[in-house]
Order: sequence, then structure tokens, then C-alpha cells
Amino acid sequence: MKKLINAPEDVVTEALQGIEAAHPDLRVDRANKVIYRGDSPRSGKVGLVSGGGSGHEPLHGGFVGLGMLDAACAGEVFTSPVPDQMLAATKLVDGGAGVLHVVKNYTGDVMNFEMSAELAAAETGARVVSVVTNDDVAVQDSTWTAGRRGVGATVLLEKIAGAAAEQGRSLDEVAEVAHAVNAASRSMGLALTSCTLPAVGHPSFELGDDEMELGVGIHGEPGRERVPLAPAKDIAAMLLEPVLADLPFRSGDGVVCFVNGLGGTPLIELYVMFNEVATILAGHGVQIARSLVGSYITSLDMAGTSVTLLRVDDDLLSLWDAPVRTPALRWGI
Amino acid sequence: MKKLINAPEDVVTEALQGIEAAHPDLRVDRANKVIYRGDSPRSGKVGLVSGGGSGHEPLHGGFVGLGMLDAACAGEVFTSPVPDQMLAATKLVDGGAGVLHVVKNYTGDVMNFEMSAELAAAETGARVVSVVTNDDVAVQDSTWTAGRRGVGATVLLEKIAGAAAEQGRSLDEVAEVAHAVNAASRSMGLALTSCTLPAVGHPSFELGDDEMELGVGIHGEPGRERVPLAPAKDIAAMLLEPVLADLPFRSGDGVVCFVNGLGGTPLIELYVMFNEVATILAGHGVQIARSLVGSYITSLDMAGTSVTLLRVDDDLLSLWDAPVRTPALRWGI
Repeated sequence: MKKLINAPEDVVTEALQGIEAAHPDLRVDRANKVIYRGDSPRSGKVGLVSGGGSGHEPLHGGFVGLGMLDAACAGEVFTSPVPDQMLAATKLVDGGAGVLHVVKNYTGDVMNFEMSAELAAAETGARVVSVVTNDDVAVQDSTWTAGRRGVGATVLLEKIAGAAAEQGRSLDEVAEVAHAVNAASRSMGLALTSCTLPAVGHPSFELGDDEMELGVGIHGEPGRERVPLAPAKDIAAMLLEPVLADLPFRSGDGVVCFVNGLGGTPLIELYVMFNEVATILAGHGVQIARSLVGSYITSLDMAGTSVTLLRVDDDLLSLWDAPVRTPALRWGI
Repeated sequence: MKKLINAPEDVVTEALQGIEAAHPDLRVDRANKVIYRGDSPRSGKVGLVSGGGSGHEPLHGGFVGLGMLDAACAGEVFTSPVPDQMLAATKLVDGGAGVLHVVKNYTGDVMNFEMSAELAAAETGARVVSVVTNDDVAVQDSTWTAGRRGVGATVLLEKIAGAAAEQGRSLDEVAEVAHAVNAASRSMGLALTSCTLPAVGHPSFELGDDEMELGVGIHGEPGRERVPLAPAKDIAAMLLEPVLADLPFRSGDGVVCFVNGLGGTPLIELYVMFNEVATILAGHGVQIARSLVGSYITSLDMAGTSVTLLRVDDDLLSLWDAPVRTPALRWGI
């Protein structure tokens, strides 16, 4: 295993300390492994809390800041945070207008966020609403979920719901926006290689030199099928056709087109992919209203990509364009 | 070879098309493989042109936009662009106030940029000034250079000189700022793995499972020495001690601290590295004025990192903070 780490058991804690050292606007509650805005809580503003297993960086800690998340809880690698972490985050950011929990649909995350919401209500009377993302069209159920997995839509949702909260919308309104983003998003991913957990030291699964895993999730869990290595053009079609058919996306729709890297894939390849994706979308009459290209929801050092489409209306688009200032996503401020 | 590409010979062209499709502010001159601002030329503004071999993305094309580069020339992977490409870029962005060429110190780049400046002067009378970056302390000469290699400082220089040009400073003033950035920057890198050129299909060099290449450049060229695999804490010391000693950086200095990924390294590891780098700097009394953490100057899919320190004064810092809107670096707008 070749990684820029010290002891495997210290990776998460040390990465959090690195985030705090690099980004003076953010604070880290080390005991609870919570990254939060230094100006929390914001009185009268809905608080946004997300979190999940580590190993998906910049998700979620890299999305904490003005116009996006107020706090993120970091579990161990590929392991849900515990309810006490989520409770601590919820308390840190509750400015009296309630808190939205953004939860990727993995069994542990869903259960633990639910429990933390109950604890928060009992302890402080905080009003918490949850939104669960489940945009991955690859598999209906998986080793980690009942129902579809939450993947790339989570990034788009955190940006857009974060903007709605920053505008002063109510908890119900922010939750409505969040549900709208999830409902209008679809994703699918593909792995060229496996990933290696620091505490394990060898790849999570084996892929032959001439094989790819189509429909992979973000934990190295099995996808739809193992297929022969193919050119970018064919990969784009394999990913986009199920995505387009599922919503379905139709000619004339405007989308945020998000081509994501899974952690070990260089940017030059993501732009080759984006070119193929744009060609296919043009063929379907789907308009790219905005784009996002880069490694934003990853699976440690896995080489591969995922594509997420979000169908947007004017409100979602103006929320997407609103100012954001986080370590990983920033514009307008 | 597992890459998200089509034919190896089309990677650069297709990635450029992807950039153009993803970023509506930018244009691509496909014949010359030049990425440029759609609002070029800007009358009365010094034009900034950079470029070099591909495979280092987002450098340079990802840094084209308001407040940074006006144009970037893309060579084939790890191969200098030819003078005609640089000439085309220079013509596209010359708004009458002259053009600054930002050149990494590699023999082919230096020679070809020089020739393009002569051609531009002869053809259009354009005034061109060049600044060559050579911040890599690892080796004095290398297989690719006479003198030190230009690496991470190039990113910081393009941002800061770009801001100076955007403010309306003269060509001489912008060049002076650029020289100041290079003079106050030092870098060193380390590879955990080799990289694979699309047209070659196998790793450029072999590294054992328990080995690292210390002082590596951005083309897989040999570094200072091959050393046993070590923890992040020791790696940070191996990289920072030669960097700190060389300028030298002294207690009380303020720096931009740039922890860079080489393409195949996930962000969680870069934050573990940043934490170690911050600890060492604190021990030397060096203040982190600003930080940059991410994969900004890469070597295809190589796993590894480099650290760049830039000693800043108030002018450089305010130029660093000035608005920038490019695909890979954006704030304030």
C-alpha cells in the first residue's frame, strides 16, 4: 500500500486537522470529528448538516462554508459516523431556524442520522428535517443499501440547498428544494481500478487489466456488471444511456452536467469524458446549462468516473449560481 | 493501460474540446491547440500566455480566465508546444499593452517560447517579455533542463501576475511581479508511483512496492534519490527541509503554502500532508498566510505530492486575493 499517510488509524483525524490548518474559516470539533463554519450558529438561518464515511473527499468536509454546508461529520473510512457526531454537529449549527440533514442512502447513515434527529429534538427541541439522496441508477438494492445509493447528486444538492438556506428560506422551503434536486438527478459510475482502504492495505476487489466495473458505487461495492475495457466514447454511452432513460431526460431539458473523478483519475481524462458526454447530450437535445468537472465525490484512490445529470429550472439554476465559499467549491465571493 | 481515453493520439485534442464544452467563457483554437479567453484581446491589458506539454492538468489550460492567463498552448503529452502555437496565442491576446510569456524551465519550452517571441515581434511588432520559472530545489540540472526545473511556482505566478495584469499594470510591472514570485518560491516533489503516457501504455519507470522517488519532476524524470517508503510526517520533512533551507525561509516570514497532488493522489492524503507541513512550518516560525491544497500541476496518473512555498509581502498577497475566474481556480467573482 502506497499512501501519503502515517498510521492508518489516524488518517481521518489528521486529514481533519489538515483541513482546519488550511482553511481558517472552518473549525474542527476533534472529539466529534465535525467540521463546521467558524461563524456557526447563524441566527435565523437554517443549518445544513451532512456527513458519512471518510474516503470520499472533498465530500463532505470540503463543502462546508458560506452558501453550502454548515457542518459535516466524518466517520471512519467507508463507515457511517455515529449519532453522537451528528447530534454534536446539529447543536453547533442550529441558529433557531431548524436543521436540514443531508443523508446519502446507505443503511448506516440513514439509521444514525434518524437517531441523531430524535436525540436533538429530545435534548434541545431542535427541529430537524432529513433529505435522503438516492440518485444512482446502477442498482436497485446493494450490499450497502435498501434502494438506490446516494452519489453525485449529493454534491449538487448541498450546493443548491445551501444557497436556499443562505437566502433565508425556511426549513420547509429548503427541504423542498433539496427534495427537488434529488428527484431531478440521476447518476452512474464506472471503475477502472479498485481502491485500497488504509486499514486493509490491499485492493477491496480485483479487476483484470482488461476489465472495468460498470455501475460501481463509491465504496468499491459491486456494480451492475463487469465489462471489457472500452474507449471513453463507449464508456460515456454506457453511463449516460441508463441515466437519460431513467428520469427520463428529454429534448429541451436544461441540466447541470457533472463529470466526476473517483479519486485516482487525472483531470485530462475527465475532460475527454466530458467531451463525449457533451456529444451524447447534444444528440438527445439536452442542453448543458452548467457544468462541473473534477473529483468531488471519490472512493479513495479508485480510478474511474461517474456522471450525474440534474434537470434544472430557473430557481435551481439561480441557486446553483449563488455565491459559495468552501474549500472545494467556490465562486461569486 | 487503464485510462478514460479513446485513441492515445487524440487525447490532447479531445480534452481541449471537453474544456471548451464545459467552460463557455473559453474558446479553443483547435488548429493551434490554444485555449483562450473568449473576450480576447482585452484592449490596453497586458496579455498572459503560458503553455507546455500536456499531462499536467489543470496546468495550464485550466488557469485561463479573468485574473489569470489569457491563453495557454497545449503540446502533446510531456512535449513542448511548437513556436507557431505560441505565436498564435500571442496574437490572440495582444491588446496593445504587450504580452508576458510564462515559461517553465524545460529546454524545449524555453527555446520554443523564445522563437515565438521573435516571430511575434517580426510579424506584428508585439512586445513580448518572458519569465522562466525554476523553483524546484531537487536537482540542479536534469534530463529535461539546464538549471532547475519550473514546477509549482508556475501556478502561483500565473495567479499573481494575472491579477497584476488585470489591474492594468504595465508589461514591465507585470514582469517584475512575475520575477518576484519566482524568486521567492521554492518547491520539491515526491512520487509514490510512476505515470503512464497514453502513447506508451506502460509506466515510465519502475518503483518497488517499498520505494519512493524523492525530488521527482513532473515528467517522471529521475529525482534526487530513491528512498524507502516512509510515513507522511517523514515525507513532509524530506520535502520541506531542502525547500526551507534554500531561499532561505526565516522565522516571521509569511508564505503561500501549496500542497499539490501529482494526479493519482486523493485529496484526503493531501490534507494529511498539509497537516504535517503546517506543523513543520510552525516549528520554524513561518506563518501560513494563505494555502492551496489540491492537484493543480500534475504528472498524468502519478501518485505523489509536491510542496511549494512562496514568501509573500503585502502586494503579492493582495494580488493573490484578487478575483480570479478560471476552471481550476476561482474566487471573488
